[in-house]
Order: sequence, then structure tokens, then C-alpha cells
Amino acid sequence: MGRHFLQIPGPTNVPDRVLRAIARPTIDHRGPAFAELARELLDRLKPVFGTRHDVVVYPSSGTGAWEAALVNTLSPGERVLAFETGHFSTLWCEMAARLGLVVDLVPGDWRHGADPAAITDLLSADHAAVMVVHNETSTGVRSRIPEIRDAMDATGHPALLLVDTISSLASMEYRHDEWGVDVTVGCSQKGLMLPPGIGFNAVGPKALAHRGRLPRSYWDWDPIIAANRQGFFPYTPPTNLLYGLREALIMLEEEGLPQVFARHERHAEATRRAVRAWGLEVLCADEREHSSSLTALLMPDGHDADAARSLILERYDMSLGTGLGRLAGRVFRIGHLGHFNDLMLAGTLGGVEMGLLAAGVPIKEGGVRAALAYLEETG
Amino acid sequence: MGRHFLQIPGPTNVPDRVLRAIARPTIDHRGPAFAELARELLDRLKPVFGTRHDVVVYPSSGTGAWEAALVNTLSPGERVLAFETGHFSTLWCEMAARLGLVVDLVPGDWRHGADPAAITDLLSADHAAVMVVHNETSTGVRSRIPEIRDAMDATGHPALLLVDTISSLASMEYRHDEWGVDVTVGCSQKGLMLPPGIGFNAVGPKALAHRGRLPRSYWDWDPIIAANRQGFFPYTPPTNLLYGLREALIMLEEEGLPQVFARHERHAEATRRAVRAWGLEVLCADEREHSSSLTALLMPDGHDADAARSLILERYDMSLGTGLGRLAGRVFRIGHLGHFNDLMLAGTLGGVEMGLLAAGVPIKEGGVRAALAYLEETG
Amino acid sequence: MGRHFLQIPGPTNVPDRVLRAIARPTIDHRGPAFAELARELLDRLKPVFGTRHDVVVYPSSGTGAWEAALVNTLSPGERVLAFETGHFSTLWCEMAARLGLVVDLVPGDWRHGADPAAITDLLSADHAAVMVVHNETSTGVRSRIPEIRDAMDATGHPALLLVDTISSLASMEYRHDEWGVDVTVGCSQKGLMLPPGIGFNAVGPKALAHRGRLPRSYWDWDPIIAANRQGFFPYTPPTNLLYGLREALIMLEEEGLPQVFARHERHAEATRRAVRAWGLEVLCADEREHSSSLTALLMPDGHDADAARSLILERYDMSLGTGLGRLAGRVFRIGHLGHFNDLMLAGTLGGVEMGLLAAGVPIKEGGVRAALAYLEETG
Amino acid sequence: MGRHFLQIPGPTNVPDRVLRAIARPTIDHRGPAFAELARELLDRLKPVFGTRHDVVVYPSSGTGAWEAALVNTLSPGERVLAFETGHFSTLWCEMAARLGLVVDLVPGDWRHGADPAAITDLLSADHAAVMVVHNETSTGVRSRIPEIRDAMDATGHPALLLVDTISSLASMEYRHDEWGVDVTVGCSQKGLMLPPGIGFNAVGPKALAHRGRLPRSYWDWDPIIAANRQGFFPYTPPTNLLYGLREALIMLEEEGLPQVFARHERHAEATRRAVRAWGLEVLCADEREHSSSLTALLMPDGHDADAARSLILERYDMSLGTGLGRLAGRVFRIGHLGHFNDLMLAGTLGGVEMGLLAAGVPIKEGGVRAALAYLEETG
Repeated sequence: MGRHFLQIPGPTNVPDRVLRAIARPTIDHRGPAFAELARELLDRLKPVFGTRHDVVVYPSSGTGAWEAALVNTLSPGERVLAFETGHFSTLWCEMAARLGLVVDLVPGDWRHGADPAAITDLLSADHAAVMVVHNETSTGVRSRIPEIRDAMDATGHPALLLVDTISSLASMEYRHDEWGVDVTVGCSQKGLMLPPGIGFNAVGPKALAHRGRLPRSYWDWDPIIAANRQGFFPYTPPTNLLYGLREALIMLEEEGLPQVFARHERHAEATRRAVRAWGLEVLCADEREHSSSLTALLMPDGHDADAARSLILERYDMSLGTGLGRLAGRVFRIGHLGHFNDLMLAGTLGGVEMGLLAAGVPIKEGGVRAALAYLEETG
Repeated sequence: MGRHFLQIPGPTNVPDRVLRAIARPTIDHRGPAFAELARELLDRLKPVFGTRHDVVVYPSSGTGAWEAALVNTLSPGERVLAFETGHFSTLWCEMAARLGLVVDLVPGDWRHGADPAAITDLLSADHAAVMVVHNETSTGVRSRIPEIRDAMDATGHPALLLVDTISSLASMEYRHDEWGVDVTVGCSQKGLMLPPGIGFNAVGPKALAHRGRLPRSYWDWDPIIAANRQGFFPYTPPTNLLYGLREALIMLEEEGLPQVFARHERHAEATRRAVRAWGLEVLCADEREHSSSLTALLMPDGHDADAARSLILERYDMSLGTGLGRLAGRVFRIGHLGHFNDLMLAGTLGGVEMGLLAAGVPIKEGGVRAALAYLEETG
Repeated sequence: MGRHFLQIPGPTNVPDRVLRAIARPTIDHRGPAFAELARELLDRLKPVFGTRHDVVVYPSSGTGAWEAALVNTLSPGERVLAFETGHFSTLWCEMAARLGLVVDLVPGDWRHGADPAAITDLLSADHAAVMVVHNETSTGVRSRIPEIRDAMDATGHPALLLVDTISSLASMEYRHDEWGVDVTVGCSQKGLMLPPGIGFNAVGPKALAHRGRLPRSYWDWDPIIAANRQGFFPYTPPTNLLYGLREALIMLEEEGLPQVFARHERHAEATRRAVRAWGLEVLCADEREHSSSLTALLMPDGHDADAARSLILERYDMSLGTGLGRLAGRVFRIGHLGHFNDLMLAGTLGGVEMGLLAAGVPIKEGGVRAALAYLEETG
Repeated sequence: MGRHFLQIPGPTNVPDRVLRAIARPTIDHRGPAFAELARELLDRLKPVFGTRHDVVVYPSSGTGAWEAALVNTLSPGERVLAFETGHFSTLWCEMAARLGLVVDLVPGDWRHGADPAAITDLLSADHAAVMVVHNETSTGVRSRIPEIRDAMDATGHPALLLVDTISSLASMEYRHDEWGVDVTVGCSQKGLMLPPGIGFNAVGPKALAHRGRLPRSYWDWDPIIAANRQGFFPYTPPTNLLYGLREALIMLEEEGLPQVFARHERHAEATRRAVRAWGLEVLCADEREHSSSLTALLMPDGHDADAARSLILERYDMSLGTGLGRLAGRVFRIGHLGHFNDLMLAGTLGGVEMGLLAAGVPIKEGGVRAALAYLEETG
């Protein structure tokens, strides 16, 4: 009984307003009502990416949008420079390799973001693109994209900048145009508060002009952008998810993007205060790089993160994110993004506090109180 | 953003499973599919009331079910004995008077339940019925129905026992048959986790046999009970709310009524521990009479309960119950009933703790912690 | 598979837009968001009744609104003049009698509306009210309310005029104020395209001023009208059905009431053309009195209407209205009201044509064609 | 007002049961509840494809599933033999060419299915695969897959057989295993009665064993099939559409697949009878090859199909399929698949009959009658 707390870093709690929108009857995707919906949507999407240019919408997971970014811009055998910030940056690189690209990986400790200085040191003439994950969902660490861009610009290098905003989009400040990003990868089930099933590419003019030769059909931007001009798609679009997307965009506009970002920052700070009051450690090691959408907690030695997660799921009906890859068993992740507010955070942290105690993890009890104090001061 | 916390003592948070059930297309209320629905429903309702006899379902609010209990059993000018346990018992008496009955009211201080001893002292030959509110929604005080019945039985008096279970039904233990209740009044929007719009009368055999002469048509039990035997109603029933009722009854069966009651008791105790840790007072003055479905808090002198409630609504998006009648401004009420769980309670109490601090009410900070400790120990 | 055709004369096919509105989470009925909803609703309701005065909204079936009209205006033992136009007018009279009123019934043949001339002949000094059903749901016959009013006015008699618009409201032209009606009775599940569960009384100033002495509490207009001024109700209102009501009223405004009425008239005429082309007879015997919301068909002698209805339900998944009271087995009723359009009518009449043929009823085949021809000409 | 008739050959009318399922809250795609859902789904999918082997589920449109079939099985520069049966077969070939394959296209007149004799004549040693569209959505012509397979077997050629069942799946008989298909391509928004957003590959053992070398990552079967064994996906699956898929599969099981196929055949025959009675021509020129899910009508010379379609959309609120590619303006297509029944077909054909008359197309009037007669005889 009672509502499940879905506090993984995505999919996030879908607002019932959005769920009801998704339940509208499907319509003819070649008719005038659809065209109106599509045009409205495509316009409303742009501010979320901070772009005046095209945003391409795919019926796909975020993984599909990763692939789209690569196959549209790169050619077989080209080199890319990428940063190991965690599990998802690693997966993206593995995808690039499978598609026939050569990946130069800047190694990382999974507790820091991409290092702008590495650009200066490592970006070489034959790199066609730089791949960065803005907010690494496996670690809760944010990379400083503007500094990466500055470092690239300082080299005068023409490489494209490809950025994954899977778990930061619509939760953390992001400016595709202003920050000089060429392709931004996003998806529906995180800050956009939708079920999974939509992937995005925001496409800057340089990326659109410099197309690679990797084979592509489904992911090809050109026919989509061309059809979008008339309000249509070259394939059957995921109409019902688009209904939800429109509703979610309206909700974000109603709150205001700056307010949305501030809300996420405040909840993230409250969560970190709870973690510290429990005497535990946040995985992110650089104060400049905390994620606003999720927090990864390091478990004390000898305590299994997944055992605690399972207990919390069973006893308190809350889903938390598991430790991925090399972090398995050592961290768990609290998602505090999307359709979320102070009392949902109070419930979430209450569940973590009770769960850690019940699992025998040696914590101090004041975590929730510390978070409430911060929330109350800043409310 | 985020979900509203609807923590008034009803309407309660409707499970989305129930909301989806309510959104099913309406069907012919005279057709075979409806008859199947109705028969299933009427069977599933009985255990919730603790009865093997008929439960009459009205398209009405709970107030309508109050009226039905009176006009079916009583005659113009008859006397009834009633207990002033709070605002709603008072309203029920006013209704009785408006319908032409004479009400002898046992006065009360709104901090105690109905006093069984008063039955012995005051029940006289010309009382046709005793009216008691099982769980007074305005105060969070539970009356001890079995002791009332025992006191009535001890007098050998044939008066009917009419009991309001508006805010206890499906949240607190209740046994219409075993406790010797003649008419039980209930409604949909509290422990049954439905929107408002359905009223109930559980009708014992003695009540069915001794019918009053107050004029009645809409509320008359007889044509309803007769039509129900075939799975129909003499009027157009509220089909979509009945869909929801079926779903809610299935959910209660899945959890098990004893577990449902235990959950409510546990959340009520956790709430009282929070209140005491804040240094505040629970309105209910008798340990035997605490409500499991709501808790009323007395505000310290000089602090306005409604000012705190407004701040909590505005800042934390949580609705709490206002002080009613003579308690206006002096108490607010926390609903912890229906579709509710530990983390929702943690969020609720977090909101109250922050709100009281923000409103400048002098409390100690440990309320949420005290509740979490109790929840964790008993989880 | 495929959608059920719910072609009884109510409940009608609820638009999915309305069903989704009903599935919104329930809110605090004493909070500011509710007050806004209620005020908007109550304003939007008035044009549907053709009134500038109050419309009282009950959590009830239409039957409840019948009772409300009587107990608010009449006193025990008073006489009322009523017209036997069919099954529902008869039921309303039975209710009046059970409530202690004396009913003078003008007999009818169930094929004609109320006869204005009878007013002149039969309205006597001790009649406190005239009760008329505007659109008799059991027969598909419309009574001419303005002519009834004229006849009453011609006598100079002060009797109140109480009109049932259960199956005409929001489907057929109706003007509470202009036609001089004192109390209009309505409900949700017909032209208003909602599930059952709401009853209405539109209350004219004369009715409000001349209150009867029948006992009343739940149905009493005064506390409701008083609370409505602030956007509230003296009881817990059926919030989720009110969400649906708002949505339905918006839909009616979008189409425009004159267009709504014209649509119903056109579908009714198309249906009658089908009936005649089949060689069958419409029950309504006066061309001036055809209902726009339903059509009752007389079966040829020796053919059972309910057998045909059952076959149509089983084979074609369409619900039609049964013959009620003295018309049982002799007629069935086609509802063509509410959320309905040309192609739904084509499907409905297709089902009737196939069903009658399959049931061995001797009809000519051109009914659907005749309806399509009319629809096409007038589209 | 009234329901829109969505009679394009997909997306089809989504049952409200499925829409409500889709509106359930999203859950953790790595948790135990999801694993249970996924395992159930993947089992229930198999009979729909007529396979005991794996069905791979993609968050994609049907186009994506086309691409998946190609990139998993073929290598750059390989030759495939394909049949020009209409617009969609052409698009699939264009995709193959863009992905670096060499397509030998057997030309067609868009009025016949793939010719099995062409296999014998044209299949040569260097063909790696044969691509056939089972039911060409642009023409309403069904290709005879078993005869194609027989012709391939007769040559002893090891080429893979790739079949598109986009608009036949769950509407027309199809047997992946028995017919010897190697890869079957499907999607959600046609016979499966879901919104768009899911693509399928049913993968036979030979296809799984003989993998091509086209670059692939998102579409790669192997990690998906491996993760599916545990009830998970290597990417975030489209959870809410999967809820709908489960519900749709349950509905298909309730009706029974043989009954589903028979229903579609019967509606298709009724539609053809209407077309002929109107004096018009069905596009499909071979009696053995009629589609059960859609019917394409040839317009008389001098009459524009799109003008009639627009009129029908505007006046009767029904969407019909446009003529695609070389058929633009010359045909329109009636979808009669998915969540559909006799009365919906009566409404659909009524709308076409009225629309053609209103558009001034010279037809005879008896189309609807001819369809009703057939439906009634065979009901």
C-alpha cells in the first residue's frame, strides 16, 4: 500500500498528468492534428537543450541516441577522444568501438569528471570528435562542459564535441549553443519525467554540415529534419509518448527552467548534508562536480550496498540505484530528479536512514534532520 | 512539481490503480456485465464491515448515508440518545433534529469518546436509538463501540445502535455483527481509498425488521436490497466509482484486513511519538481511544493552527485537516490513513516538522527521528 | 474486440477526455484549488440549464434530484398535478406519494407528451405544483414545456412548475428561465456525457422563496447555495466526477450548445428515417413531440423486443434500451445522445438492421441507407 | 463530438484497456517486478509470431526493426533479392542500399504479391538473403510466404528469408517456424493494438548462427537475448509500452488467435463486397492475395483520392490511409484491423459511402448494405 518511491536516477517518477496525457487515443501520424502536435513539441524542446537549432526525436532508448550521434558524424576508422568518467562513459566508448571507431580513452577514477587539461595534452590532429558524459549517471559526477570546450577552442582543433546529457537534461543547467556543443544526446525517462522510449539528438550547425560516412538509415538526421519542417516524421513516431512529452514540457515551462535547476541543486545539497550527517561519504570527490540529479553513496568497508538496497526495497518499497561496473556492491545511488519535491525527499531520505540502520550499517542518526534543516532554511 | 501530499483525514490519496479502474468506460447498468460487477462488489464489501448481512450502497456523500440510517429506522418525533464527541457527531445530531427527531445529547469535551457509563445513566424507555461516531474525524478520538453495546445490553433496552464509521472503515478494526451494531454508516473517500461519491449502510436484521415512519424514497433500503439480489439497483448506480470500489476491495484483500489495521495502528503510534518528541500534545486524552486513521495536534497557546497549515500547503504542497467547530485555529489534523506507507509518513512528518519550525512554533526538532526510530524497530 | 456500442438512452458513451479528467487525483475539498474548480463549474453549468440562477449539485443519481425538487418545495399532504407520459413520470409520482404528497395524475397512452389543455381543465386551487417530464426516457416523447407554462399562466395559478430534464439536458433545447420553470431536475449520465453519480436542481427565485415543510437535510438547497458562494459544499462533494463535469462542459462549449442541439435533432431524424424504411413504427405518435436523444421502436406483433436486444448485445456488442413498464417486450430504445457522431450512428443503425434481420423480424433492408442518405444531404 | 474513426492501416484504434495499462507508473527496469513482466511478455509474444525461438523487442518504430534484421544478418556489399510489392517494400530496399547492401529488385505492378516463380528464376549464388513484405501496407496485397519458401528450398539455396509482417502480425495467419522464415520484422501499432514505439525481430536459429559483419550496436541481438534470459534488457526498455503490450497479448489470448484471424478475414471480405457494390475496384488483383487487415480502393479516373479523404476527415471525423508513392491520389486505404468489430466496420463503410457521394464520385449506393448482408449471414 502507498506509493512506491522510484528513487533510481531514472526512469523517474512520472507525473500522473503525463501518464494521463500518454493515455490519449493514438492519432493518424500523417494528419493535420499530428502536424500541429509535432511542431509545437519541436519548438518547446529547444529551450530545454539551450539551442535554437534542430532537436531530432527518435523512438529509441537513450542508447539509440548515443548511436545516432556517432553514425551521423563519424566515418569508419576515425579516432575519437573520450573520458572514462564511469560506467556509462565506458559503455558509450564500447559502442563506438563496435561501430568501427577508434577510441582514445582518458582514464579516470570514477570520482571525478572529465579533465579539461587532458584535452590540451591529448587532443591530436586525427581526433574527429570528443565524447563527454555531462552527468555520469553511475557516479553522480558532473563534467564541466564549458571548460572542455574552452580547452578545445584553445587548441584551435576542429573536432566535434559530443555530449551525453542523459541524466542532466531538464534537471541541471545545460546550454548546447552557448557552450559550443555540436551534438547533445538525451532521453525521455529522467529529468523530462517521461517513461523510457524517446531518444534525442540536439544538432548544431557544424555537426549538420560535417557528416560522417558510417552507414546509417534509421538514425539519419536529414530525412527527419526535412520531414519535421512539415510537422511529420519519415517513420511512425511514438505518438503517445509525444503526448506525454508535450505535457512534461508544459510542466517545465510552468515551473520555469531556472527554478527547475535550482530545485534540483537544493535537493542534491540536502541529500549530501544527510549523507555527511550519517558519517558516510559521497562518491563525487570534487566540490565543483556534484550532480544535481543523483547522489552516489560509498558504503563503509564490509557492508554490501546491494544488501541494503534489497532490504530497502522489500521493507520500505523504495527502489534505489545499484552500483554499476567496478562500483558494484560498493555504492548505491539516490535519484532526486524529475517530478520531485521536499516531502518526497524527506520520505526518500527517511527510507535510506531506516534502511541503513536496519541493515546494520554503522551510521549516525541525524541525516534526515540535517536535510530537513537545510530544506527549511532555504524553503 | 512532485506529488501533492493529501494528508487530510479524507478524501485520502487514491491509488492510481483505483483511478485507472474508475476511468473504465461506463456500461449498461441493466445488463449482464453490470450484474456480475454488482454481485461481486456486494460480496466483497461485507468483510470490510464485519457483517454477513446486507450493505446498501448509495450514490451520495457520507452525509447521505447518515440520513439513510435515520429515515429508515426512525419515526417523526422519536427520541434518540447521542454523544457529543466532536464536530461530526454534532452535525449528525443537527441532521436528526432537522428530520424531526428529538435528540438527547450527552455533552463531551471533544477529547474523549462516547462514555459507556452514560448509557446506563441516560438511556430511557423512550429512546428509539443510540447514535455514536466510531472515530470522530474532527478530533482523532475513537469511541469504544463494544462497551457501548454492553452497556445497552445491560439495560435490556431495545434501542437500535447506529454507528458512524466514516473515518474508521477499512482502517480500524470494526465488527458490525459481532459488536451488535444495527446500522453502520460509511463512505468511500477515507479508508476505502476512493474519491467521494458513495455512501454505505450496513444493515443488521433488527434494523431491517423495525422500520420507522419517516418519509423516505431515495434512501429506502427495501427496493435496493431487493434489486441487489439480482445484481441491479432501483436507480442508476455510480458505475465508475463502483469500478474503483471493486479495485480498492481487491487491494484490501491482497494486503489482508488484519494487516491493514495493524499498518494504520503503527503509523498512528509513530505519529504520536513525533508529536510528543516535538513537545506538543495530542488532542485525544485517553490512551484507550486513539484513532488509527488521524491525529489531531493541539497548538501551543498563541499559535494559530491555520496559519501553520497554510504555510505548509504553500511551501511543502501538503494538505492537512483544519480545526473544526470549537477547535478552529487550535488544532490541525494529520490524516495517515488509506493508501499510505512508511515513506509517505516520513514525508508527511517531515513536512509538519519543517512547517512548524518555519511558522515559528516552538517545537523540539526530534519528531521525525522519533517516528523513524519506531518505524524502523517495528518494520 | 472493438468498442462496445452503449446505445441505451443513458448512461451514454463517456468521452475518453472526460474519463481521463475523472482519473485525476482527488484533492482537499476545503482547499483553494477546490474552490476555484467549484466556482468555475457552477458558472459553466448555468447556460446548459438556460438559467442565470443557482444550480444545486448533489452526489446522487437523478432519482435523488427528483426527491430534492419535491422536499425543498412541498409540504406534507400537499397536492400536485402530474402527467403520465411513461415509466419515469410514473416513478416520480410514486416517489411523491411515498414522501406524503397527494398526486393527481393525468393519464396518458405513453405515446404522447403532457397535454397543455389538461392544465386548463384540471389545475385546481389546491395544487401546489405541476410535475412534468420534459423528455420521457421510456418512450422518446418530448413534452412541450413552454405550452404547459402558458396554460398555467393563463389560469393565473401560483403552482410551481417542476420539470425533469434527465434525458434532455445538454441534448435538446431547454430554457429554465425563459420558459418559466421553477425547478429543473437533471443528472450527469446522459447529455452531459458523464458517468452516473451527480444530480442537479436548477432553482428559480420563486421556488427558492416558497419553501415547503417536508423534512429535509441532505437535499436542503439553502446550506448548499450558501457554501457554494465560497466555492465549497456543506458535505464532501464528488470531486472526481466534478473534474469530469468541468471537462464535459468545456467540450459542450467548444461545440456550442446550438450545434449540440442541432446534432441531436439531425441524428434523431436520421434514426426515424431508418425506422420507417425498415417498415417499423416509432412509438412517439405526435410529430411535434419527437425526442432528439432517443427513439423507441415498436416491434411488430409476435416479436419480442428483448429477444432482439439480447441477440444484438451478444452478436454485435451493442446495448440498447429495454421496454419499461407496460412497454416491456413491445419496444426497444435506441439512445443517440451525448458523445455521438454520424459514423457512430451508422454503426448503431447497422447493428439494429442486422440484429432485426437475424432475429427474424420482418423488416425491409433499406433503413441504414435511408439514414445515410439523410446524413449525407445534411452533413 | 463522438469518437474519431482511426481507419488508417496503422496506428490502429488502441483499446482503452491498453491505454490504461500504458498509464501505469513506470518501474525500475532492473528490479524484480520488471523481470517478471519481461519474462511473461517474451513468452506471450512467441505464439503471435508462430515461433518457439527468440523475439527481440526494440524501443523503435517498425523501420528500426527493418534495420535490425539487416544489420544482424548481412555484411557490407552483400547482395539481397527483394520484391517490389509497393511503397514499403521499396523503402526497405532503399534502406538496404543505404546500409551498403546491393539490392536486386524484382519489379512489380503494386497489385500483386511477391512472385514465387521469380525465386526460381532469379535467386543466384551470391544472394545472401531474400526480403519479402508479407502484407504490403501500401496496397493491401499479401505475399504467399510458404510458396516463396518452397521455391527457395527447391533451389537448395542457403539464403536467409527476411519477412516484414508490420501490418499482418496479429491480424493474419503467420507461422515463423513452420513457414521457415529466418527473421520476421514486426511492430506494435497495427494488429497488436498498441501505440507506435516498439519494433520486433523474431529470430530463427539459422539467422542467429549466421551473423553478418555490418556494424551494429543498438540493434545487436546478442546482448538483448542474453539479458532477456534474466528478464532484463541491455538498454532502458520502453516500460509503459510493455505494460500495454502485455495487456494486448492477454486480449488476443482471450479472443484466441484463430478467432482473431477469422475476424479480420471476415471484415476484409465484407469490405470488398462493399467496394464492388459501389462499382469500384479493389487494388489487389489476385484473389489469393487479398489482405485481411486493409483494403486499397482504386478511384475512378478523374477523381482524386486525397480530396475524398480530406472531405471524409473533415465531415465524418474518420482518418483513412492516403495513396503512397506512385499510388498517390489514385487510391485510398481502409484499415480494418486491430481493435475492431462489426459495428465499427458498419460505421467505417458508412463514412466511406457518404464521403464518396459527397465528393461527387460516381458510385452505386449499395455498398454498406452488401457488407451488412455478408456480416449478418456470417455473424
